Amino acid sequence: MMQRLTNAITYPRGFVASGVRAGIKEKGEDMALVLSQVPAAAAGVFTTNVVKAAPVLLDRQRLPRSTARAIIANSGNANACTGEQGMINAAIMASETADLLGVPEDDVLVASTGVIGKQLPMDLVRDGIKSAVSSISPQGGASAARAIMTTDTQPKEVVATISIGGAEVRIGAMAKGAGMICPNMATMLCFITTDLSITPEMLQKCLSESVDLSFNCLTVDGDTSTNDSVIILANGEAGNKTIDSESADLDTFRRALDSVTTALAKEIAADGEGATRMIEVTVEGATCFEDARQIAKTIANSALVKTAMFGSDPNWGRILAAAGRAGVAFDPGTVNLYFEDIALVQSGMPVDFPEKDVHDILRKPEVKILLQVGPGTSSATVWTCDFSYDYVKINAEYHT
Amino acid sequence: MMQRLTNAITYPRGFVASGVRAGIKEKGEDMALVLSQVPAAAAGVFTTNVVKAAPVLLDRQRLPRSTARAIIANSGNANACTGEQGMINAAIMASETADLLGVPEDDVLVASTGVIGKQLPMDLVRDGIKSAVSSISPQGGASAARAIMTTDTQPKEVVATISIGGAEVRIGAMAKGAGMICPNMATMLCFITTDLSITPEMLQKCLSESVDLSFNCLTVDGDTSTNDSVIILANGEAGNKTIDSESADLDTFRRALDSVTTALAKEIAADGEGATRMIEVTVEGATCFEDARQIAKTIANSALVKTAMFGSDPNWGRILAAAGRAGVAFDPGTVNLYFEDIALVQSGMPVDFPEKDVHDILRKPEVKILLQVGPGTSSATVWTCDFSYDYVKINAEYHT
Repeated sequence: MMQRLTNAITYPRGFVASGVRAGIKEKGEDMALVLSQVPAAAAGVFTTNVVKAAPVLLDRQRLPRSTARAIIANSGNANACTGEQGMINAAIMASETADLLGVPEDDVLVASTGVIGKQLPMDLVRDGIKSAVSSISPQGGASAARAIMTTDTQPKEVVATISIGGAEVRIGAMAKGAGMICPNMATMLCFITTDLSITPEMLQKCLSESVDLSFNCLTVDGDTSTNDSVIILANGEAGNKTIDSESADLDTFRRALDSVTTALAKEIAADGEGATRMIEVTVEGATCFEDARQIAKTIANSALVKTAMFGSDPNWGRILAAAGRAGVAFDPGTVNLYFEDIALVQSGMPVDFPEKDVHDILRKPEVKILLQVGPGTSSATVWTCDFSYDYVKINAEYHT
Repeated sequence: MMQRLTNAITYPRGFVASGVRAGIKEKGEDMALVLSQVPAAAAGVFTTNVVKAAPVLLDRQRLPRSTARAIIANSGNANACTGEQGMINAAIMASETADLLGVPEDDVLVASTGVIGKQLPMDLVRDGIKSAVSSISPQGGASAARAIMTTDTQPKEVVATISIGGAEVRIGAMAKGAGMICPNMATMLCFITTDLSITPEMLQKCLSESVDLSFNCLTVDGDTSTNDSVIILANGEAGNKTIDSESADLDTFRRALDSVTTALAKEIAADGEGATRMIEVTVEGATCFEDARQIAKTIANSALVKTAMFGSDPNWGRILAAAGRAGVAFDPGTVNLYFEDIALVQSGMPVDFPEKDVHDILRKPEVKILLQVGPGTSSATVWTCDFSYDYVKINAEYHT
C-alpha cells in the first residue's frame, strides 16, 4: 500500500509542483511550490516551540480551511526571530504566489527553513516565486522534494494508494529532516497531498493523531525547531463520498496516512546529522501511551545511549538509567530489556547473552531495542539515530 | 571564606580519612573512608532516578540521623542493578567497616560508583576496608578525594571557615564528577564534613536547599546516575551552641555551605567528559526559580548549544530555540541575550555585536550566557560544559 516513489507529492490527482533555485542557499534548488488545481481541504500541525517562525504564525491563522490552493516554501532562511518585517515577508511570499497563480492570498500557505535571525532576501524570493509558478507541472514533485532539503543526504518521498467507497484514493508526501540548516537549526518539514474528499475538521483530526504517532515519536538531538511544520492538502479529485465523520472509510485513510508519516519519520531518523544507524526504541507494559513514549524518548535522547550505539556497545546500564530518569514511575525489579529477540536484562538483573549475536545486531543499519517496564498494556515506539563524531563536527565547525 | 585546599574532608575538627587501593578498578586508589571521631548529625540527598543503586537504598533508610560515624565508598563498581545480592553486599560494606571501627553498623553510610550490573568483588572490598581502617589519619583527606575519582582529571576539594556564636566552624568537602566510570555512568558523589553542632533535621534542610541551588543546577549530558549521593556529617566539635531552628547563625552556615557546594558543582562542570570549557547559563526575569532553572537547564543540555560552544560559535539562534522548548511560557518578543556584557539579542531580535569581542569571550575557559525572558523577578544559574569530539570518543569507544 505504502511505497517509496519519486514525484510523490504530485502522485494524487490534481496536484502539480515545482522546485527551483532562487539563490537563497549556497547551491541547488531552494524554493518549492505545490499547487492543487482545485480548492482543497487543508490542515496543519506546527512546532510547539514558544519561539515560532513567521510562516508558522501565518499558517496557524489560515488552517484548517476548506479552500487551500498552494504551499510555497523556501530553504536557506528560516524567517525566525525576524519580528514585524518577518511577518510582512511571509505574507508577501503568500500574496505574490497567489497573484501569479490567480488564487486568493489566504489560500496559500508558507514554510521556511534555514538560518535564524536574518531577513529573507525578498528580491531573490520574488524571482524564485515567478520561476516556481512558471515551471509548475505534474512532473515537478521530485525537484520540489529536493528544494526543501538542507543537509539531508537524500530526498524523502513516499506514496500510498487505498480504496475508499470504491474510489481509488492516493496519498503523496515529501519531507525534509534533521539536517542542519546553514547550519543553524534542525527543522522538520513535511507536505502531504491526497485526492481524498474529506472535511477540513476530519482532516485536521487525522493529521494531528498521525503526527503524534510518527513525527512526535522522532528525535535526533532533542532540539525542537522554531519552524517544524506538517501540512496536508486534500482536494477531493478521487471522487469518493466526502468523509465528514468517523467511519470505516476514515479508518482506512487513517491507517494509510499513519504508514506514510511513520515511514517518513523513520527516514528522517536514519538520515539524522552524522547518523551511522537508525535506532528504534519500543517501550511496552506502561499504563498509558504518553508514559511509554516519555520513557522511550528519554532513552532515545540520551547522549550516553546514542554514543554507545555509535560504538556498537550493548551498554544496557545506560538504557536502564535513562528510563529511570524519564519521570515515569515503574518497578526496576520487573524490567526486561531486549535487543531484537535477545534478552539482556530480565527482572531488572543482567543475564548472560550471546555476545557475538548482540554485536551483529548492533552493527545493523537499524537497531531495535525493546524495554518492558511492567504489567501495563500500553506501548510506544520512538525512532532516533546514533551520536557520532560527525554530529559534533557538523554542529561545531560552523561559524555564524 | 571558601577556598580550595587539599585534605579538605579532614579540615574540620574530629574527622579522619583514608584512601586506599583495593583493586576494584584498573589502577589507583578505589576505596575511601571518612570517620567522625564522635557521633555526628548526618543528612543526605540522593539520585531521583527510579533505578537506584543498593548503597543509595541503604543510606536512604539511615538518614537523617544524629549518631553517624563513617562513610565507606568505592569506585570502579556502582553496585546498581544487582538485586538482593547487591543489597546484602552494601550492608556487608557497612557492617565490616563498623566492626573494625567498633561503631554501630547503622551509623556507617555507603557509596559506590562505577560499572552497573556487576556484583562487587567482595574479597577485594573486604581487604580494602581493612586497609582503609588501618591507614586512617588526619592527613588522609587527599587520598580519599583521589579514591572516589574515576575519569575526573583532578580531585575536587573545597573548605570554608565561618564564625558561629563566637566559635570557629569549619566545613570540608570533596566531590567526584561527571567522569565516566569504567566507563559506564556519570555519577556525582559529594561528601561534606563540618564541626558545626546542629540537629539532623536542620542539617537535612540546609543540605536539601543547598543541593537544589548547586548540584541540581549542574548538567553535563542530562543523564542522571543511579548512584548520585551527597552526604554531610556534622560532629559538633566546634563547640557552638547547637543550631536547632532558623536563626542568623543558621543563615551564616547556609551561605558557607552554598558556597562550598556551588564551587564543587562548577568544578564538576568544568571537568565534564571531554570538556574544553565551562558554560554558565543564567536566566533572569522568570516568574519563579523553577521556571528560570528549567529554561537554563534546557539551554545547558542542548547538544546544539554545547557543540556551538565547543566550536566557539556565537550561535544565539540555538540558545533561543532551546529556551523556547523548555516548557515555560514567555514572550519571545521581549527576550534579551548577552554573552558576558555584550548584547546579541534585544527584544527578540538580533543586534549587531562586536564579533572579535564575542569570539574572545567564547574562547575563555568559562563562558557566561545571560538570557532575560521577561519582567519576572526570579533567576537561576546552571553550569555545564561544551560538547566535544572527546565526549563521543570517551562514550563510544568502550566495549562492555
